[in-house]
Amino acid sequence: MAPPKQVNIAVIGTGGVGSVFISQLSWIAKNTASTHFSLCYIAMIDKALYHEDYSEIDIDTAVEAMEKSGKTPPSIPTIVDYLAAAPHKVITVDNTSSRAIAESYPEFLRKGISIVTPNKKAFSGSYQLWQDIFSAAESGGSLVYHESSVGAGMPIISTMKDFVHTGDEVTKIEGVFSGTMSYLFNAFAPWNGEGSKWSDSVKKAKELGFTEPDPRDDLNGLDVARKLTILGRLAGLPIESPDSFPVQSLIPTELESAKSGDDFLQKLPEFDSRMEEHKTAAMKVGKVVRYVGSIDMASKQVKVGMEWCDPTDPIATLKGSDNIISFHTKRYGSMPLIIRGQGAGGDVTAMGVSGDLLKVLVQLG
Amino acid sequence: MAPPKQVNIAVIGTGGVGSVFISQLSWIAKNTASTHFSLCYIAMIDKALYHEDYSEIDIDTAVEAMEKSGKTPPSIPTIVDYLAAAPHKVITVDNTSSRAIAESYPEFLRKGISIVTPNKKAFSGSYQLWQDIFSAAESGGSLVYHESSVGAGMPIISTMKDFVHTGDEVTKIEGVFSGTMSYLFNAFAPWNGEGSKWSDSVKKAKELGFTEPDPRDDLNGLDVARKLTILGRLAGLPIESPDSFPVQSLIPTELESAKSGDDFLQKLPEFDSRMEEHKTAAMKVGKVVRYVGSIDMASKQVKVGMEWCDPTDPIATLKGSDNIISFHTKRYGSMPLIIRGQGAGGDVTAMGVSGDLLKVLVQLG
Repeated sequence: MAPPKQVNIAVIGTGGVGSVFISQLSWIAKNTASTHFSLCYIAMIDKALYHEDYSEIDIDTAVEAMEKSGKTPPSIPTIVDYLAAAPHKVITVDNTSSRAIAESYPEFLRKGISIVTPNKKAFSGSYQLWQDIFSAAESGGSLVYHESSVGAGMPIISTMKDFVHTGDEVTKIEGVFSGTMSYLFNAFAPWNGEGSKWSDSVKKAKELGFTEPDPRDDLNGLDVARKLTILGRLAGLPIESPDSFPVQSLIPTELESAKSGDDFLQKLPEFDSRMEEHKTAAMKVGKVVRYVGSIDMASKQVKVGMEWCDPTDPIATLKGSDNIISFHTKRYGSMPLIIRGQGAGGDVTAMGVSGDLLKVLVQLG
Repeated sequence: MAPPKQVNIAVIGTGGVGSVFISQLSWIAKNTASTHFSLCYIAMIDKALYHEDYSEIDIDTAVEAMEKSGKTPPSIPTIVDYLAAAPHKVITVDNTSSRAIAESYPEFLRKGISIVTPNKKAFSGSYQLWQDIFSAAESGGSLVYHESSVGAGMPIISTMKDFVHTGDEVTKIEGVFSGTMSYLFNAFAPWNGEGSKWSDSVKKAKELGFTEPDPRDDLNGLDVARKLTILGRLAGLPIESPDSFPVQSLIPTELESAKSGDDFLQKLPEFDSRMEEHKTAAMKVGKVVRYVGSIDMASKQVKVGMEWCDPTDPIATLKGSDNIISFHTKRYGSMPLIIRGQGAGGDVTAMGVSGDLLKVLVQLG
């Protein structure tokens, strides 16, 4: 067989996920028999490194060299033109959570540049953008992979694609899609014990680094709604946007306008009784309360919010900040396929990106 | 982009998994935008259908036409020569559990014919065969995919490959790898109740079709040992064979020579006290007994047999005949990635095969 064709790789974003991804890319370059890629572009928010002749950038020293280069990143259209004119096929790895870059994916894809990314924004934005992305990929003959946009490195998107592309019928998807929400409810309403006060759970989660700097960015449920939007669309529902279905916010209305995350945390204990009511009501009927996202395909209903679960349900016995996702399909019948594990964090998110990169490489090379 | 290259497909085996696979292949042909494959060979144990000019066989009527054709299948070397001379790249889908075909994979692969299969025999036979298969694929520029050889359609092999190919370090794998063993122990020693007699569990499992015709073929543990062999090798252990590590058989020595499965079942109640002892001993320390397979990478220890599990362990709370597999890796840290679901049955096994076929198609096309 002919040796695989060379592929150029562009990396945007060298933060938490991006820096781990680059170390994984370096490992792959050194440990894969038929390496056939070369880095031609690397950028962070205010720095970039690339050569007009597309000459190879050494992966191990790329970040350092980029920081020293003094170049600022070109505009997105300029990046697209630069990459479209590369001597080989190009994969752009977007490790940012930038909306602007996400919205430009159709430009990349239409010009034959494949995309690999953990960035949720593109796939959970408007339905129009979703359609533009996949039709641009089709017309450009390019690929777009985004495993880490749901559940980090866990095989969620790939499993959904296997169902859809082999003709299984997904009937229901449900689970705990947020590590933060998982931690909060496992601590607040454990299936086999007393649990802590709601506000104490939130404070502890923040101390452990399990929340955004302002915990309201987790408690509003938007992150979960974005993931449900992506899975629902993959299953075939034309979901307009993450706010086109019911999402229960756990921010007391009175605290929506709190000045800061700290201000919010200080006032949160005043509202503990509300959450306590939910917990007690569930306990009275032998259930535990959990923050669940679900998609019911028959009724086309997507929703995110508190639900009562049986203590024997795998959702109830989740530990730590684990995510869990149950796929009910026609072929799996009465017992769902369940995937559980760490759904956030640099190492596993970057692994999802690296795994996707390898899958795209074997198709282009 | 140029349209994908045509690929020829050969299907061997039209039994339980094979017949479902063919209906999934038909679905894929009708529902995929850029179908670029054609069936050129189909065979069962004593019939075959193919044309000297490789003209396309209609998928929907293939089995019927094969049965009417009156041709017997050529010898394996003749099949290999026929497929190697096809006008396009070829994927052979082996839906049998034939050892002879498994042992001939290197011949197919060396001649550039890719293999997709649920057949465990090739990957859990001698380590020499394992090595021959992958070196033949490398020299032939062909691919070999076998997702359904462990856990049917569940994403087990693909997840292992993602760990290994992106540089994660698998430290431990453990789980319940047999639907039969799962059912038996969930019924015999439920985590939250009394449970049934061991011999009654076995009888009930047989009635429900959860065992082989002779239940000893499940109780000897060999099926689990084969799956552990495959996963261990993927993780990098040079496991010589499925009988090169400790496998606990649940067949009483006295019944190993029982004349038939029925004879075995009739005498099994005489030995119930032995299993009861295991259950009681575990219960005394608040545990439940389960039939577990595990691979510890640090000590290179692989073993299969009864273990005591905490009732909060996901292994203990398994239901029905579900399989469960926990991957402990460096990146996942203290909480493993867990995949649980139906690990046997025609529909889901065939789905694993179809999913693999699609992954090979995009690489060849």
